Amino acid sequence: MRILIHADDAALWKERLAARLPDATFAISGETRDFQADYLVAWKPPASLFDAQPALKGIVNLGAGVDALLNNPSLPQDIPIVKLRDAGMGELIADYVRYGVLHFQRDFDRYRRQQHRAEWREHAVTPKREWRVGVLGLGAIGLHVAQRLAEDGYPVHGWSRSPKAINGITCHHGDDGLTTLLEQVHTLVTLLPDTPATRHVINHETLAALPHGAGLINPGRGTLIDEAALLEALGTGEEENGRLRGAMLDAFPTEPLPGDSPLWSHPRLWITPHMAGPTPVDEAAEQVAKALGAMHAGEAIDTVDPKAGY
Amino acid sequence: MRILIHADDAALWKERLAARLPDATFAISGETRDFQADYLVAWKPPASLFDAQPALKGIVNLGAGVDALLNNPSLPQDIPIVKLRDAGMGELIADYVRYGVLHFQRDFDRYRRQQHRAEWREHAVTPKREWRVGVLGLGAIGLHVAQRLAEDGYPVHGWSRSPKAINGITCHHGDDGLTTLLEQVHTLVTLLPDTPATRHVINHETLAALPHGAGLINPGRGTLIDEAALLEALGTGEEENGRLRGAMLDAFPTEPLPGDSPLWSHPRLWITPHMAGPTPVDEAAEQVAKALGAMHAGEAIDTVDPKAGY
Repeated sequence: MRILIHADDAALWKERLAARLPDATFAISGETRDFQADYLVAWKPPASLFDAQPALKGIVNLGAGVDALLNNPSLPQDIPIVKLRDAGMGELIADYVRYGVLHFQRDFDRYRRQQHRAEWREHAVTPKREWRVGVLGLGAIGLHVAQRLAEDGYPVHGWSRSPKAINGITCHHGDDGLTTLLEQVHTLVTLLPDTPATRHVINHETLAALPHGAGLINPGRGTLIDEAALLEALGTGEEENGRLRGAMLDAFPTEPLPGDSPLWSHPRLWITPHMAGPTPVDEAAEQVAKALGAMHAGEAIDTVDPKAGY
Repeated sequence: MRILIHADDAALWKERLAARLPDATFAISGETRDFQADYLVAWKPPASLFDAQPALKGIVNLGAGVDALLNNPSLPQDIPIVKLRDAGMGELIADYVRYGVLHFQRDFDRYRRQQHRAEWREHAVTPKREWRVGVLGLGAIGLHVAQRLAEDGYPVHGWSRSPKAINGITCHHGDDGLTTLLEQVHTLVTLLPDTPATRHVINHETLAALPHGAGLINPGRGTLIDEAALLEALGTGEEENGRLRGAMLDAFPTEPLPGDSPLWSHPRLWITPHMAGPTPVDEAAEQVAKALGAMHAGEAIDTVDPKAGY
């Protein structure tokens, strides 16, 4: 089995995978010529890579988001794509969201603004058991986040395109279900994949459905959010004068977020540089090695559906 | 049983306690004259209150901190004092600390400072399992916080004056144990009571024992911290140029924190207005009613040791 690796930390991946697949041959993209791979292990490979690899039998995507890969014009058709469904990322993202939910539930955003004007004023706490959190997207990561928040004591509402039943989570689906969820949540968390159907799911209409003073957390995909609608729903300045109280944003349509973006300087936006869910190499390597082994052995494996986009 | 209530929200306490103790008679401090009480339920009562109540048989302190009460010059000697050991405060404080630990572990403090200069730069995550948290004080609340952090996946080191053994927590005690703990923690949490022995436990010497770049969280008592030493250990400005990376402070020797305190404007201090552990009335009322019932029936009950100060 000949494996080509394309990633920022390719040498690390090679080392970890070689330890698990001692009979495989590895090459790192850009380091060797004329290496014809059976399998590609990659994060955002360029189109030229596929043009030079006509014999690929399968791809492992080094992340949960497959939008970049599926939009690659040279992506071969009809070969299986396996993505990392949750290689510890779920827990990292759950902690990002935990921080964000506490940020709003316990008024840390307000206290930070009060500190700027040396204002000592306590806000009454809405207990966790009354603080409703909505999670859009119940894939492996959304599900993990929703379950963690429920364990922490928050009432959690989840939304997915098709109906689901999950113990401890109030599940909604479809367009009507989305409105039902939005109308009652204190904090909204977006963990949907980037597909044509989810682009700008956070727009004027959906933001208007939220209760006044709701907070938003996006550790998912930047394209989920219509930025103009977001800024309008926030209003301007430190004062909470719009429908949205504030937002924590980790993903943006263009990354790095351009220096002249108005998002950087909005006092009620918390901007993080796509750090919510880095892939932990050790845990992910185990998953990648298993996927490669299964594809090579012709075993059944859970693959990406390119039409659905995830 | 005749019960006098002294608290900001005395009417609420009276309502909740009357529902649980239907045979008792209640009065609110300042509202009735000549009410001779058997028991006092109070938060920071004035000395004049005790002067007018010579027949008290017991006191319930409406909080975990008894320093204000024990320092009251008119406090009667030799009557039992019961304090709220953890009436939901533990969980509220645990969430404050969780937020604070994530704040440092996941670099939210750094990202916030980067946002001010529109800087997109990701920091490598030290996993939870390698992020050592030290908890000073293993009373009911310190213990609850330590256990929650351990459940969340952090290695937790606890410190108490006398030796303890707690499942899942590495316990230290005494002066040597304090140094051993300080030398290895990424984040230090102070949850000690305010006693002569704990005053300025965070001082030049103990701060110097911390690893370079450690963070501090104080949801406890303001007097635990020598502010001058804290400011020196922080250094100045946004840049992390001192031993301390930053601190979250919820308690201060003088509250409200004076408007001219240099703490307000330090960019690496997060100041909150003593909001980490408000007493949740419903849960606390149950505990107060039980304590009153037990004292009245002459049953054995866990009381404050005025000499130890907690």
